[in-house]
Amino acid sequence: MRTPPYFVGIDVGGQSIKAGVVDDLGKPQSQVDVPTEAFKGQEHGLAQMAVAAERAIAAAGLSVKDIAGIGVATPGTMDIPAGVILEPPNLRPWKNVPVRAYIQQRLGRPTTFQNDANAAAYGEYWVGAGQGARSLVLFTLGTGIGCGIIVDDIIIEGAHSHGAEVGHVVIQMKDGRMCGCGQPGHLEAYASARALVKQARHLLATTPKSTSLRKTAIMETVQQAATPEEEETLDARHALLVFQAAAAGDELARALVDEAAYALAIGAVDMMHTIDPDRIIFAGGMISAGPAFLERIKKYIKMHAFPVPAAKTEVLYAALGNQAGLIGAAGCARRAARGGLRAASA
Amino acid sequence: MRTPPYFVGIDVGGQSIKAGVVDDLGKPQSQVDVPTEAFKGQEHGLAQMAVAAERAIAAAGLSVKDIAGIGVATPGTMDIPAGVILEPPNLRPWKNVPVRAYIQQRLGRPTTFQNDANAAAYGEYWVGAGQGARSLVLFTLGTGIGCGIIVDDIIIEGAHSHGAEVGHVVIQMKDGRMCGCGQPGHLEAYASARALVKQARHLLATTPKSTSLRKTAIMETVQQAATPEEEETLDARHALLVFQAAAAGDELARALVDEAAYALAIGAVDMMHTIDPDRIIFAGGMISAGPAFLERIKKYIKMHAFPVPAAKTEVLYAALGNQAGLIGAAGCARRAARGGLRAASA
Repeated sequence: MRTPPYFVGIDVGGQSIKAGVVDDLGKPQSQVDVPTEAFKGQEHGLAQMAVAAERAIAAAGLSVKDIAGIGVATPGTMDIPAGVILEPPNLRPWKNVPVRAYIQQRLGRPTTFQNDANAAAYGEYWVGAGQGARSLVLFTLGTGIGCGIIVDDIIIEGAHSHGAEVGHVVIQMKDGRMCGCGQPGHLEAYASARALVKQARHLLATTPKSTSLRKTAIMETVQQAATPEEEETLDARHALLVFQAAAAGDELARALVDEAAYALAIGAVDMMHTIDPDRIIFAGGMISAGPAFLERIKKYIKMHAFPVPAAKTEVLYAALGNQAGLIGAAGCARRAARGGLRAASA
Repeated sequence: MRTPPYFVGIDVGGQSIKAGVVDDLGKPQSQVDVPTEAFKGQEHGLAQMAVAAERAIAAAGLSVKDIAGIGVATPGTMDIPAGVILEPPNLRPWKNVPVRAYIQQRLGRPTTFQNDANAAAYGEYWVGAGQGARSLVLFTLGTGIGCGIIVDDIIIEGAHSHGAEVGHVVIQMKDGRMCGCGQPGHLEAYASARALVKQARHLLATTPKSTSLRKTAIMETVQQAATPEEEETLDARHALLVFQAAAAGDELARALVDEAAYALAIGAVDMMHTIDPDRIIFAGGMISAGPAFLERIKKYIKMHAFPVPAAKTEVLYAALGNQAGLIGAAGCARRAARGGLRAASA
């Protein structure tokens, strides 16, 4: 059972490009992965996107003429209306890459372009943890913190394609920790997997007494040299070790997890006092930490949000896993074809 | 020269209700003030709103049948879609006041309802400092900090009418100053007129050496007992005395002004990394401090925002003064009548 028309979603990451056919109800009909190989240059990268789309279409037993639209999602920096990636830190040495125009011409189908975190939010909004909501804010907790904001089927892209960079709102104006972006006090510096692991290393190095955290062998693992390619995976894996140690009763790990939950709650409250969405959704590697972490975040949200949003805003984990970007990219294509996501699916 | 159709804007404040007729181009045709007298109860308050509207219509030489729509803006808390004020701290003892239904029935014209800070933002968006922009974030710097966010003619009201409460985003998660709302670390606790005056009092009381700040007689003025009714005016006036002392070279006052400018820049950067609007606009009593204060805010914004929004976002003072709420309320009525502000005025 699948419901035409069909859309292709392409989710470009630093390591691999995921593509899949998604039907009119948001159900993936295929998924393929091809390596991004950004180092081979952007011509190669664009060709890889097209290859991924073609393979996804074939894997779904369809041909290009069956596809009503294609959506591509990539990391930034970017010019979303122009369909161009500018100077993406995770896709070096790409520069000014005309993604939308290339895909549209190469595959001959209407193509939309979107930021990957925005696309993931849109995927959850369409058929994931945001289904049925009018508005949501999604936080993706990985090495960094990505974010997407949807209000009444509108993606808050920003006037300069910098909307929803909520990992980089300042939550600690004075004496703030340095963020990977080079500015102090950002949410990401307190609550990303990398921040958690970095802080764990720091505390382990400066806390004299032996703790059960050491028993989990996290120090040995954490201090292994990692290649830049491994770093993203390692951050998430090591963060989960800290969660594990916390669950096992380690006080140091507990404090670290608590601090991350608190910072995320502050980030969520800031969005509740700015966007005031129906739902706040957490996604990404760190949600493998499980329901106890979410409960801790919710506890702090209730302590700090205004009473009405504290009582009414739903706070939950994402539902689509790592398919959110692909589904959301396809959703953007579908919205463009239909002039509105909810209107069309009613 | 005036351009029909005409709309009435009603801006309800703690002390007075402003009403005016606004023409199709956003030009006020009349303005009247009547006392709110909230203490006399909400029946009286509703009647005062209607009286204000009727006087404004008469003052413009029109009659009710000439009015295409009425917009009412009030402080919160509220349920915007329902058109109801819930438990407004500045309008005690009002509770669950059906503003929109009352005005619509009493005057027999289509009526819209909006939060006052949102309405002010919408006024600036329509014919003020936001004219021609697709999106803006407005900060109103008074006793507290109000905020309104407009994106593509949509007012970010929030799912629970708590959108754009940006005075209450956390900019100092640890060891934050207490905000008037009872939560620590909010923008308002660092950058409102009241925060500035409070901090001035504190520093004057604890700084031993005589400074030129004392010469401006601010201490004498600041420490006068104020009735609650006078407090709002006093906060703004005393804040301006601090600006005056800073301009006159007082080091303590300079540090206070600098701190407020820095906190406002952080608030602005947080919005540039969340909404990423075309324009950031500052309004309210504190902007009488003049262009030097704005330049200071802009300097800090450029230091802390991502390069593209830092270079491209326009940061400016509001243009409509205390008529912004009234014009914006009328603009909301006009948008409802026309199905879109920009579309209709093109």
